[in-house]
Amino acid sequence: MYTIQGKGVSKGVADGPIYFYRRGGGEVVKTAVSDVEAEKKRFEDARQTAMQQLAELYDKAVAEVGEEGAALFEAHQMMLDDLDYIDGINDMIEGESINAEYAVSQIAEQFAEMFASMDDAYMQARAADVKDISTRVIGILSGVVAGGIDSDVPVILASDDLAPSETVQLDKSKILGFVTSGGSGNSHTAILARTMGIPAIIGIGDALTEGLEGKSAIIDGSTGEVAIDPDQITSQRLLKKQAEERALKALLDQLKGKENVTLDGRKVMVYCNIGSPDDVDPVLANDGGGIGLFRSEFLYLQNDDYPTEEQQFQAYKTVAERMGGKRVIIRTLDIGADKQADYFQLDKEENPAMGLRAIRICLTRPEVFKTQLRALYRASAYGKIAIMFPMITSVWEVQEIKRICDGVKAELRAEEIPFNENVELGIMIETPSAVMMSDRLAKEVDFFSVGTNDLTQYTLAVDRQGNNLDKFFDSHHPAVLRMLKMAAENAHKAGIWIGICGELGADVSLTETFLAIGIDELSVSPASVLPLRSAIRSIDTTKNSQKILDDLLSD
Amino acid sequence: MYTIQGKGVSKGVADGPIYFYRRGGGEVVKTAVSDVEAEKKRFEDARQTAMQQLAELYDKAVAEVGEEGAALFEAHQMMLDDLDYIDGINDMIEGESINAEYAVSQIAEQFAEMFASMDDAYMQARAADVKDISTRVIGILSGVVAGGIDSDVPVILASDDLAPSETVQLDKSKILGFVTSGGSGNSHTAILARTMGIPAIIGIGDALTEGLEGKSAIIDGSTGEVAIDPDQITSQRLLKKQAEERALKALLDQLKGKENVTLDGRKVMVYCNIGSPDDVDPVLANDGGGIGLFRSEFLYLQNDDYPTEEQQFQAYKTVAERMGGKRVIIRTLDIGADKQADYFQLDKEENPAMGLRAIRICLTRPEVFKTQLRALYRASAYGKIAIMFPMITSVWEVQEIKRICDGVKAELRAEEIPFNENVELGIMIETPSAVMMSDRLAKEVDFFSVGTNDLTQYTLAVDRQGNNLDKFFDSHHPAVLRMLKMAAENAHKAGIWIGICGELGADVSLTETFLAIGIDELSVSPASVLPLRSAIRSIDTTKNSQKILDDLLSD
Repeated sequence: MYTIQGKGVSKGVADGPIYFYRRGGGEVVKTAVSDVEAEKKRFEDARQTAMQQLAELYDKAVAEVGEEGAALFEAHQMMLDDLDYIDGINDMIEGESINAEYAVSQIAEQFAEMFASMDDAYMQARAADVKDISTRVIGILSGVVAGGIDSDVPVILASDDLAPSETVQLDKSKILGFVTSGGSGNSHTAILARTMGIPAIIGIGDALTEGLEGKSAIIDGSTGEVAIDPDQITSQRLLKKQAEERALKALLDQLKGKENVTLDGRKVMVYCNIGSPDDVDPVLANDGGGIGLFRSEFLYLQNDDYPTEEQQFQAYKTVAERMGGKRVIIRTLDIGADKQADYFQLDKEENPAMGLRAIRICLTRPEVFKTQLRALYRASAYGKIAIMFPMITSVWEVQEIKRICDGVKAELRAEEIPFNENVELGIMIETPSAVMMSDRLAKEVDFFSVGTNDLTQYTLAVDRQGNNLDKFFDSHHPAVLRMLKMAAENAHKAGIWIGICGELGADVSLTETFLAIGIDELSVSPASVLPLRSAIRSIDTTKNSQKILDDLLSD
Repeated sequence: MYTIQGKGVSKGVADGPIYFYRRGGGEVVKTAVSDVEAEKKRFEDARQTAMQQLAELYDKAVAEVGEEGAALFEAHQMMLDDLDYIDGINDMIEGESINAEYAVSQIAEQFAEMFASMDDAYMQARAADVKDISTRVIGILSGVVAGGIDSDVPVILASDDLAPSETVQLDKSKILGFVTSGGSGNSHTAILARTMGIPAIIGIGDALTEGLEGKSAIIDGSTGEVAIDPDQITSQRLLKKQAEERALKALLDQLKGKENVTLDGRKVMVYCNIGSPDDVDPVLANDGGGIGLFRSEFLYLQNDDYPTEEQQFQAYKTVAERMGGKRVIIRTLDIGADKQADYFQLDKEENPAMGLRAIRICLTRPEVFKTQLRALYRASAYGKIAIMFPMITSVWEVQEIKRICDGVKAELRAEEIPFNENVELGIMIETPSAVMMSDRLAKEVDFFSVGTNDLTQYTLAVDRQGNNLDKFFDSHHPAVLRMLKMAAENAHKAGIWIGICGELGADVSLTETFLAIGIDELSVSPASVLPLRSAIRSIDTTKNSQKILDDLLSD
């Protein structure tokens, strides 16, 4: 046996024969045509067939991975309906009197290059999409049947990379796992593989030769390990892991649709942290109860200039609508420290983590802040949006923020733009000062959300990204847990709820402690929702809470 | 009128005529002598006369500025008794058959150059001393009367710069203030001027011409302003300031020797912060009750390599002895962050204030720590030394420190080196974590001392040296005051005392608040001792304490 190594992008263990994906079609040949109108008609017919196929693929994907995972095929239809794309192809057929296949391949190449050259990861990823739809049209034009698996037994599917439509069209009952030589962890394929729960390993490179065809293999999607002709020890190790993971997955799947409730009946809000509208898919797939933290920085970090009110509005509206009536807490920009956008022209700082960042920038540059607030309030007409402010240290900051919000609301009212008059306002509790002042702050807002990462680093005065400091950093430090207790008490005294949206919220070894402390909400990555639900449902808060608090608070 | 500007080094306003200091003596001429033994005798007689004068000057200085300010003249006597110096002069008289005056001036020059070339500010300052004693000896040899003031009325004394002995010999009743063209703020002259309470302005440069002799002037030692022939508006402004300052000084002088006690009889420890053994002078001159913070960094920052145990021992012993039986709290090294010493070879950090600094270096490099602890324990045999550890965040750190201390004590015991078995150990409370854990930490140590500067910056997550952050930094932030209250309560519950050694301790607008909170000790700069004593003696803690606490702690 021997092992080749890639990057695991969808966890799980699969064992079976390696099988290379057969792609339909081949080289596109350029041929002259005499009747360009007939050729344009040929292209249009093929395009309509492709549209029909995509609609069917969409339905298939909805059934397999839900609406969110299927949305890509709507996007593909829109792309295939794009006038620039269609006109480009027709113009080429007419101008050069050439066959439709060639025109499609050339225009596809042009569009892909254009997308790839953009300074934006999202747009770059669209290059693969335009190639994908074009390959489909060319296949239809040339009568080639779409590629697939010509095998009777389930296989570990190998390829250079798979287009999203290729992934979806596959007969999933035949797929044990994916291994690709190229690819990226954020490609639609990787995302879909994760959503479908199929192990996937990408970036294996040249080691993934066609010579492996038919060989027996076991792959581990969490480590990126691909064992070829595995020996008995490796088999036993990996298959044991597979059995454990399957048992866990089965357990978690049973929890979908169930409540986040303790054995003694206490309900907990389990929300999700997201970084862009795309992340709503896994939230819904994993049964997240809402968005506890939507980091609005992505709009600022992707852009070369301040995002417009309209750009922001669209993003917030999309998330609000897609989450239906569920709460969507959007945090105002947290630029500064380790998140820098050049056009903000922030000075270099000696200690950027304790510098001009987040709300401090907003209160120093109210025009930037007001643009974001206008977009947020406008979006509030389309769902249950709440606004959260980061890096609060003082009561006066919250009071100034509320005055600015009132000004924005007055503007929108005057402009007769619809918005929710009662948008909930909350603050991050991520500075020790906010904890110490939490009694007074709680009277000013509708909710608290604790940012455990920053709170821990300021409380311990240890840079969480620093080297040589591991010995002094402790994410379970009692000082931080005591602060949580203090903030929770003060929140409840004022009748508001308190959550945690830092990484610590997903740490199930602390869930019972959080419940004992009185935490009402935990906002975690989508993949952590079901494990956390499982933990919550196994806890009886009448049992150990008092002892946990006594241990934490005793001197 | 017109104004010339220098650097104020001793505050106060003086008005009177400008008078230039007349120096005795002139150029030293080299002459041949035939009887070298007689010439050596002449030198020895002059040296003995100089020793006698220095002894008298010492007594005069003790009367004028106290023992500490007078110590310089003891140092001068020691220097004049130095065998290298004496032998150098005698050898030159004998070897070159020249007059004593010339030999003294040449050897003085050699010694001064040697001192000046040393890479150590303290030794460099000794160059002026060796010139000073040599000028005295030459004056005696040549029968020149020491310079002075040939004026019937008090004057503002002008000069290029004054030697310490020149300053002391002056008839203080004739001196309203000092103005010099050269000089440094840390020269003995500036220090003595401050101790004597005489306004002084240095570094005026060429603007201080002898043409100003006899002109009427008003000088302001706090701003460095020298108004020549002042108009009425300027006069009124400066004389009003003078009257206010004098009234305050008179008030403060009355407080020397008195207790730091409130109207209702509560005693407060008022200690001093120092950065080197030299700073003991102003501590004693200002009636400081002990050293609340001796920053041991100076030994590390001045050196090109780790200071030896012996170097450290001498420094700590000197301070302990000079402070008599009074408590001397020495803080172990606080290198890192904005205090860097190259030979530590610390990595560059993204957020150095939250990096590998202070106790974290000591616990990572126990060999450096143990050297300092050995020096500290050895010095404990010579006074009332206490040891304080900076940047504590966790109980385990203190427990590890105590284990290391026990190891050091066992070593010294085995080596039969004397030390105090019961040296008090304390910690800085300067991280939010230390405040939150203060109940448990209080059980481990003998005292707390709050570092308000760092505590405030971590609590607010605002770099206190950062730009554009003034709006968000508040040294009186209630979050920090509430932390003080929490730490004080926990200290008293465990039966230990708590002090403040940050800049905030000297802020008399907070003294009543600190007493209400239960602070037992305030460690401040020497100049702040008497103003603080004045504040303490005006407070009745039975009057407003409860209201202050209610306002601070209410939600």
